[in-house]
Amino acid sequence: MESALPGRLFCQTGPAFPVRMDVCMSMKTTVEKWGIFEAAFSGRQDGNPFVDYEIKGEFTGAGETKCVDGFYDGEGVYKIRFMPSFEGEYHYKVWGTFSDCVQEGDFTVTPALAGNHGPVRVANTFHFAYEDGTPYYSIGTTCYVWALQTEELQEQTLETLKDSAFNKIRFCIFPKHYDYNLNEPYSYPYEGTPMDSSVLTPENFWDYNGRTEGNDWDYKRFNPKHFAHLEKRIQDLMDLGIEADLIVMHPYDRWGFSMMTKEEDDLYWNYVVARFSAYRNVWWSLANEYDLMPQKSLADWERYASILCEKDAYAHLRSIHNCKNMYDFRRPWVTHCSIQRVDSYMSGECVDEWRQRYQKPVVLDEIVYEGNIEHNWGNISGEEMTRRFWEGAIRGGYPGHGETYYSEDRILWWSHGGVLKGTSPERIKFLLKILQETPGHGLKLNPNRVMMREDIEATVDSLIPVPYYLFYYSYRRPVFKEFNFSDGKEYEEEVIDTWEMTIKKCGTCTGRFKIPLPGKEYMAIRIYEKGLLG
Amino acid sequence: MESALPGRLFCQTGPAFPVRMDVCMSMKTTVEKWGIFEAAFSGRQDGNPFVDYEIKGEFTGAGETKCVDGFYDGEGVYKIRFMPSFEGEYHYKVWGTFSDCVQEGDFTVTPALAGNHGPVRVANTFHFAYEDGTPYYSIGTTCYVWALQTEELQEQTLETLKDSAFNKIRFCIFPKHYDYNLNEPYSYPYEGTPMDSSVLTPENFWDYNGRTEGNDWDYKRFNPKHFAHLEKRIQDLMDLGIEADLIVMHPYDRWGFSMMTKEEDDLYWNYVVARFSAYRNVWWSLANEYDLMPQKSLADWERYASILCEKDAYAHLRSIHNCKNMYDFRRPWVTHCSIQRVDSYMSGECVDEWRQRYQKPVVLDEIVYEGNIEHNWGNISGEEMTRRFWEGAIRGGYPGHGETYYSEDRILWWSHGGVLKGTSPERIKFLLKILQETPGHGLKLNPNRVMMREDIEATVDSLIPVPYYLFYYSYRRPVFKEFNFSDGKEYEEEVIDTWEMTIKKCGTCTGRFKIPLPGKEYMAIRIYEKGLLG
Repeated sequence: MESALPGRLFCQTGPAFPVRMDVCMSMKTTVEKWGIFEAAFSGRQDGNPFVDYEIKGEFTGAGETKCVDGFYDGEGVYKIRFMPSFEGEYHYKVWGTFSDCVQEGDFTVTPALAGNHGPVRVANTFHFAYEDGTPYYSIGTTCYVWALQTEELQEQTLETLKDSAFNKIRFCIFPKHYDYNLNEPYSYPYEGTPMDSSVLTPENFWDYNGRTEGNDWDYKRFNPKHFAHLEKRIQDLMDLGIEADLIVMHPYDRWGFSMMTKEEDDLYWNYVVARFSAYRNVWWSLANEYDLMPQKSLADWERYASILCEKDAYAHLRSIHNCKNMYDFRRPWVTHCSIQRVDSYMSGECVDEWRQRYQKPVVLDEIVYEGNIEHNWGNISGEEMTRRFWEGAIRGGYPGHGETYYSEDRILWWSHGGVLKGTSPERIKFLLKILQETPGHGLKLNPNRVMMREDIEATVDSLIPVPYYLFYYSYRRPVFKEFNFSDGKEYEEEVIDTWEMTIKKCGTCTGRFKIPLPGKEYMAIRIYEKGLLG
Repeated sequence: MESALPGRLFCQTGPAFPVRMDVCMSMKTTVEKWGIFEAAFSGRQDGNPFVDYEIKGEFTGAGETKCVDGFYDGEGVYKIRFMPSFEGEYHYKVWGTFSDCVQEGDFTVTPALAGNHGPVRVANTFHFAYEDGTPYYSIGTTCYVWALQTEELQEQTLETLKDSAFNKIRFCIFPKHYDYNLNEPYSYPYEGTPMDSSVLTPENFWDYNGRTEGNDWDYKRFNPKHFAHLEKRIQDLMDLGIEADLIVMHPYDRWGFSMMTKEEDDLYWNYVVARFSAYRNVWWSLANEYDLMPQKSLADWERYASILCEKDAYAHLRSIHNCKNMYDFRRPWVTHCSIQRVDSYMSGECVDEWRQRYQKPVVLDEIVYEGNIEHNWGNISGEEMTRRFWEGAIRGGYPGHGETYYSEDRILWWSHGGVLKGTSPERIKFLLKILQETPGHGLKLNPNRVMMREDIEATVDSLIPVPYYLFYYSYRRPVFKEFNFSDGKEYEEEVIDTWEMTIKKCGTCTGRFKIPLPGKEYMAIRIYEKGLLG
């Protein structure tokens, strides 16, 4: 590759917009810990800069040295981004194949500001924590292409998220073609023109899936505006404390983005990693429903994963979401399960099996959606959605939400975002509160289950036994439950109505005792050693 | 064995009380087809007549010749019973080891009266019919020891059954010892005295299970009154058109009836068959929860089955009910599955798998009970019970009911009978109506499922395709469903509310059409070729 330097311009260095920065106050650039340092360079525009040139950077602080890829951002501008994981002085070197020069510089990493806990990591076998150690109880929702709707709708989605308990959202980089998803997206990821979508109807759309006819795309020339827009949305989510679970590939496609060659795919994966990985709230979902993409082999998925492992310098969380057949989540690159329930009846109830099988955190990214549309996966009640959340959470798993209420304007939260109409989100917020009050770090089914063998009884997921028990009765409606503690300790009892979102303290007890219940569905009991919870 | 004849007296011959008979009008005894002919003889009382003497009979009509065992009924009386399966003249010979004589005679079998359709048989692989060909859609309930409660309570149970849809009831021959079941039974099956039950409490009862201390029984001397009483109740059920699914053994026992020797067990099985098998409404359930009886081996169960196969001249239906581990229902002697769900979440939903595995009718004799007691298996809502019934029925299975509402007097339908308090029985009656309206004989999941792959769609279980489709939406709440029939036929559409028990006719349609729904749980749609139903 030739490497002439037609012109080199250091045009901007510092925290990427709109990270909060105090650079103006200082002579030296400063970046918040787990914030983004960005440098931009002008470079060659001839040929196809996405393919013909590369830019790389090496960043060195007292705690780390990392090498990362930059990317071409269009109009002769190349950028490189870096997320520092340590406070203090950093030195960087950047070089591009469009130049002989190496650009060097320094910046200072300041402490993380309030609300910035770093990227989410697997904290122990089954649970997550932010890098600063703060437990992270994943409460996800799915809005597949919320960021590719109208500007107004996107803003509405962010408003809705602001008031919700959701701390993770799954969404796609590519646009989505599916029932209720026949419109043109906000932008396209490539240069070119799409097929004429006016021919599409709810009856015929499926015939166009996975076809490329009528499209004219250059799968080797990205549309940087598309990616810059998604970055803005990832940043917006970061500001709300929400993880961006990016779905990199998916099968619901009328533009050919799911049908690209191996070379084109790899170009895409590298570009995605170079652009997005410096955002601390990014999670990688290799695909939504990878098993509905017969055009991609297992070797392809493993190759994409190897690109991630090699190029993502921050080792963001990685998984891959199934339709009918789960991926082998035991693969070393998979950090956590991202499960779609494989039957429409059971989801959260299987978490303990999956924990045992995969020995990783179990995230249930689709347990069917609250709503009332015609599709089997999108019409359960708020009660049933809440029940599934509790069934999964009580076993130490992390169920995810989605909503599909029919609307004449065909705007459904599950794909478009907008407003929430359902009754489960409020109850999910209540569940999150219970999880956050759990001593230690996360729940698991009590392996002893000595008291009432037939109930769903959780305890803390810790090596050290903690006298804390949470019983969930789901659709069962006992009018009382009996307990028997032989340890002589004094226990506090609470009756929790998971639907009404109330916690009623029932006093303290020792030994054998009975707790009356109202004979309603969706009740829980919490019992813990006196004084354990605040 | 010595065979002297101290005194022989022909004391009674004719239909067993209280079979409807017109013997008084005729010089010759007459018996209704599938009714009971009974002959009684006086014989030796010395030694132990239950063990020391036998009585047998051979019955010959134009259609059959059958040899059956009689039994000792106490106080020197031996009896023999026979259920004729054909109309016309019969000749019989009876002989006992207490006598040298052979008693012979004749009787006439008259046509079955209204409501008498004969014993229930397996009509095709998955469904039942009475012997006269009338389809039988099993709608069972469980009242384990209803017939061993107070006389008053037994009468109340029969009154309740009279108004219900239940056409099968599971109950035990032996009394039951369990939570809510600590009282003395109406009668005991053996001569002797029970342990002192005043020591029992809800806390300690389990310690006495499977123990024999404090009991004094002669396991070789039956109490004929106990069996005669059960016969009366079997006859009462017959009069109501209800099948008596007799549970011959079970593990919940403080008297030692579950701990007898092989010899004692066999004596019991032979006695039971000799007494009960002439009742056309008898089904044999070898055990409730056989797998909770480690004292009985697989060889034991197979030996009991071989006694049934050899001695029950009428080949009544035979099965065996599990707790956690299903019996191998493929065994040739098993006529149908008698399943207890193996997890508390899924029951009816698994019928299609079980049909495929066992290739026999799938009866679900326990899918947990409607109620509100503390036990996990006894506190679902009427809605959930009804939903489970539909899930099972739509797949061509036969779910069973039970009810466990807490009551201060500790009388629960599940074990004691009495009155029904739940909301599911009425809806189960409505389901039976739908089943009875199904053309052909029984439902199955539509193997084609061409229209809406994700729905639960049943069609008739017949070799000949019939244009009849039943869709059940369970907890799902679509506001509409779309259909597409490419055959050009005119179809009638009905929206069924399985909870409100309404059927709304929506008109007729051809080709592609949409049916609006109320967005509620528990809805169904029925679509059939115009004019097919009524």
